[in-house]
Amino acid sequence: MLKDTIGGKSIILRVELQTEAVHFGQLITVITENGGDVIAIDVIQTGPNWTVRDITVTASEQVQLEAVTGAIKLLQGVKLVHVSDRTFLLHLGGKIEMKPKVPIQNRDDLSRVYTPDVARVCMAIHEKQENAYKLTIKRNTVAVVSDGSAVLGLGNIGPYAAMPVMEGKAMLFKQLADVDAFPICLDTQNTEEIITTIKNLAPAFGGINLEDISSPRCFEIEERLREELDIPVFHDDQHGTAVVLYAGLINALKVVGKSINEAKVVICGIGAAGIACSNILLAAGVKELIGVDREGALVSSSSYSNPMWNWYAERTNPNRLTGSLHEIIEGADVFIGLSSGGVLKRVDVERMSPHPIVFVMANPTPEIHPDEIEDIAGVIATGRSDFPNQINNVLCFPGIFRAALDCQATTINEEMKLAASAAIASVVAPQELNKLYIIPSVFNQEVVRRIRTGVIEAAIRTGVARRMPREFRSGGAI
Amino acid sequence: MLKDTIGGKSIILRVELQTEAVHFGQLITVITENGGDVIAIDVIQTGPNWTVRDITVTASEQVQLEAVTGAIKLLQGVKLVHVSDRTFLLHLGGKIEMKPKVPIQNRDDLSRVYTPDVARVCMAIHEKQENAYKLTIKRNTVAVVSDGSAVLGLGNIGPYAAMPVMEGKAMLFKQLADVDAFPICLDTQNTEEIITTIKNLAPAFGGINLEDISSPRCFEIEERLREELDIPVFHDDQHGTAVVLYAGLINALKVVGKSINEAKVVICGIGAAGIACSNILLAAGVKELIGVDREGALVSSSSYSNPMWNWYAERTNPNRLTGSLHEIIEGADVFIGLSSGGVLKRVDVERMSPHPIVFVMANPTPEIHPDEIEDIAGVIATGRSDFPNQINNVLCFPGIFRAALDCQATTINEEMKLAASAAIASVVAPQELNKLYIIPSVFNQEVVRRIRTGVIEAAIRTGVARRMPREFRSGGAI
Repeated sequence: MLKDTIGGKSIILRVELQTEAVHFGQLITVITENGGDVIAIDVIQTGPNWTVRDITVTASEQVQLEAVTGAIKLLQGVKLVHVSDRTFLLHLGGKIEMKPKVPIQNRDDLSRVYTPDVARVCMAIHEKQENAYKLTIKRNTVAVVSDGSAVLGLGNIGPYAAMPVMEGKAMLFKQLADVDAFPICLDTQNTEEIITTIKNLAPAFGGINLEDISSPRCFEIEERLREELDIPVFHDDQHGTAVVLYAGLINALKVVGKSINEAKVVICGIGAAGIACSNILLAAGVKELIGVDREGALVSSSSYSNPMWNWYAERTNPNRLTGSLHEIIEGADVFIGLSSGGVLKRVDVERMSPHPIVFVMANPTPEIHPDEIEDIAGVIATGRSDFPNQINNVLCFPGIFRAALDCQATTINEEMKLAASAAIASVVAPQELNKLYIIPSVFNQEVVRRIRTGVIEAAIRTGVARRMPREFRSGGAI
Repeated sequence: MLKDTIGGKSIILRVELQTEAVHFGQLITVITENGGDVIAIDVIQTGPNWTVRDITVTASEQVQLEAVTGAIKLLQGVKLVHVSDRTFLLHLGGKIEMKPKVPIQNRDDLSRVYTPDVARVCMAIHEKQENAYKLTIKRNTVAVVSDGSAVLGLGNIGPYAAMPVMEGKAMLFKQLADVDAFPICLDTQNTEEIITTIKNLAPAFGGINLEDISSPRCFEIEERLREELDIPVFHDDQHGTAVVLYAGLINALKVVGKSINEAKVVICGIGAAGIACSNILLAAGVKELIGVDREGALVSSSSYSNPMWNWYAERTNPNRLTGSLHEIIEGADVFIGLSSGGVLKRVDVERMSPHPIVFVMANPTPEIHPDEIEDIAGVIATGRSDFPNQINNVLCFPGIFRAALDCQATTINEEMKLAASAAIASVVAPQELNKLYIIPSVFNQEVVRRIRTGVIEAAIRTGVARRMPREFRSGGAI
């Protein structure tokens, strides 16, 4: 692990010194001579003729830190036990913990939260299952479930390696929306086993956030669970992306003064996210939507080996356009990229209608580098944090689950997703809106609040809310 | 729920008053006239001609609280919305929550705990799966899994109703041993599905605490999971009970001055807990152990419809004694009851050898009331907190999992359980030991500490520890 963990410009070295062979001062000298700055020292353990210390070292350049570790390894009497960087240190022992809401201080407390008094609480749920929402964690708890088959851009790295992502997601759920989320990484990639397992573990949870499950299994898993469970099941890679994309598009269209009903939209990359984005755009009123993948425009007159593509072609591309992306993009108002780096060229963007909207969300390398088209694009958005207008799922999942939990929704339907998009878009005030600011920051606290209101209203309107939070009740009292 | 939630001597009434029809003072008068004492008032919501308030009322007798609620229901213009007692209030919204260990305050933090930096952490685990113990919650996290089929004394109440018990257990894990435990209540009682589901969700966890699963399925589920998983699987109803029982017996034998090798032990109730207790006693050196159930003493010359009983009879009752409990108990040194209230009579105890040890653990009614035999018993223990010497699982599970996690044990074996018993017994110092104090309190902080040390030593000795905590390393450095 040594080599891999050097990443930031601050590292922590755990060293074991044989005190008869080397002086601590010699070690410090070696560090500073190689460009490192010692900012903290912790003594971990000491014996008769050895000592173990953690030394925090910073440097202005990564290469200096590598020089420091290299030089230490050559020192007689010094063993370099560990090198950790801040990212790894943050992950030590995991990033989340379970906490009791109240302390158990004495036998009286114990008898209330555990036997014998807990039996009365159990029986109240046994008599009326809905009481689980009142008397257990169900009302505030979401499972973040992955099989590790399509993690970030890393691919099929399995359930153990997927855990840090799911833990990170659980942190964001809590911090941004006060949702208790628990990461479940499944040691199976069998569709039926995944469905059965999630159904079996559902009673504790008020919602299921599916995550990083590869296509096409993700479709069947989500669809089946939506049918068979009475709590929301939401594949974030699909719908989270779609909600935030559409939020960005609402504002981008305002910036360029175009209407969604009249826009020609080309979407490149018809995988799980591409299909979900297409669905939300169709629901939002896009008339001319053309999907493009490796074989060019998807058209209903063709037949594809991927069954999703046939289904997709039936519902899009009303003018049955055929051809490559370069051909299809002519006169398009919006390009949405969910494919891979470099597939879009400047000449393609030049063929689009005036003030084109270009969302290039491939990660880490966008379909075209924003700098290449900055002068000709109406609005540009990416999936990255180092350009303006980041289309980031973190804007959606905390708020949409906050809403679903608060109204005990049975599902998250299209209307709720559209409401979430509108809510996110609304956070950017008209006077703030411009081509470099169409989407709010994930740290903007207004985001979750507005999503919650909009999505609960949509859930009530569409009849999927089992509970009406007090502020949504008309006519006053409880 | 109204009626059921009145239990303590303090309740909280949520009332909605039509302010034109009734004055708040009239309501308070009704409460005090019926024997209630108003100790707190919270205004929840107010409208033009109504108000919703929470009124906390105490009374010296339960019957007075019932009179209060009855009288309020008769008041014109007052609607009694809820009555909650303290136990129910403690359970509102569940008893545990998930917390991030560090806050995500800015984009830099976000990039470390989530994308893009988390990818390096994922890959470190992908390259070496053991790194999951360093870089995820696995190293401190246990799943508390039940199917709700045998919850407390309540029976098969299902997964939703079982949750409050599992949440309570999670609280105890954290508070007593700093273990992060998460409750999983399974919506299936099919043995194969339970096994598959637990295997599938195992990657996040360092151990599995099975709980309240009915016999005989609990045996197969535990056995199969122990074979197929590389983390400890521990059915607490069996082994937790056995560990604490044996801890109590170690000290009880000291009090009466008898040796475990020479003791005649009769155990009544050969279910899941009875078998586990018998196993630990055999491992601890008991030679003459006789199991008794509804058909009398289990003996290898008979054949039983319950296959566990045949297996049991083969390994116990060396003198092939036959007959009822009343016959078998003659000359016994130890009686262990895991059956039901009232099965043991004073005349039975009179037939035991001098200074008999009587552990009557049926709940809530012991096999015999301790008062009935106080004058003739050497030592009495029960499962209840209102008598001396409570045999309580809470003494075992936090510490034994603390130990298993800290040494990354692959299993919890018999040696580790025996070590846990010895550790619990050792907390009662020789000078403190007497017939009314053979077992420490669950709030004694020494319990977890000693179990941890003893169990880790046993794990290392028997080769099931994958990690040696620093204080167990001989020869000094790391």
